[in-house]
Amino acid sequence: MTDQDNFTSSDHFVLDDRLERDCINVIDLALSRLLMMNDRQYPWFILVPRRAGVSEIFQLSEPEQLQLQRESTHVGRVLMDMFAGDKLNVAALGNVVAQLHVHHIVRYRDDKAWPDPVWGKHPAQPFAPAEAAALVKKVRAALAPA
Amino acid sequence: MTDQDNFTSSDHFVLDDRLERDCINVIDLALSRLLMMNDRQYPWFILVPRRAGVSEIFQLSEPEQLQLQRESTHVGRVLMDMFAGDKLNVAALGNVVAQLHVHHIVRYRDDKAWPDPVWGKHPAQPFAPAEAAALVKKVRAALAPA
Repeated sequence: MTDQDNFTSSDHFVLDDRLERDCINVIDLALSRLLMMNDRQYPWFILVPRRAGVSEIFQLSEPEQLQLQRESTHVGRVLMDMFAGDKLNVAALGNVVAQLHVHHIVRYRDDKAWPDPVWGKHPAQPFAPAEAAALVKKVRAALAPA
Repeated sequence: MTDQDNFTSSDHFVLDDRLERDCINVIDLALSRLLMMNDRQYPWFILVPRRAGVSEIFQLSEPEQLQLQRESTHVGRVLMDMFAGDKLNVAALGNVVAQLHVHHIVRYRDDKAWPDPVWGKHPAQPFAPAEAAALVKKVRAALAPA
């Protein structure tokens, strides 16, 4: 049995409308869907555990929490390596979108919002479609198990 | 062997000066030190894994990462229960203080910063010393293993 087998049951998970609108789909990991925020100002990715009705990490089962931690670490390492960031910001806020989602934002000492958090600082600057597609393809390949 | 035994080796951990200045010590869990931000505007607590030279969660060993997740869940549940919050904000940012620290902030739909994140919104309003001491005592008791 692989990890994948443990976490496939998706009950009645439907991605939140706002996340659907603001993000681009990257890949489904064992537990979580990985999204890319459609904002070219930062490498900004979001893990959404495919579980319905969950808004806090502590509402996941313990195996799900540990899997989310593993996926967060995997995604975080790959992103920091690929984008050569200075710092990773990892956050589960959820004040606006209640569906549990965990931001992973690669930060640079010379990015537009540094050293502040990115939320609410600058309006999103959407990617050109081809640019987004190329980036998603690259991240997807880097995340795939060897 | 208990969890406590696994995580006592503290190598050369020293709490960051800024955290020391801005926070009040609450308790040492197996891996992390729990601090309370000295700001009476929000129930705002911070977990600091007692490991030197670590600024990203993914730099911890896998057992340490999973222990941090367990401590985060324990602290998050206790705080949300005690303070009857509407949402918990959990975040490892570290743009200003590099030492790995994970914010746990109980949010209310009518708090001063809602729905924005709390960082940089309003200058801290320190507790009166007796008020802080009473709160820390209460949180410490709630966190203690039954």
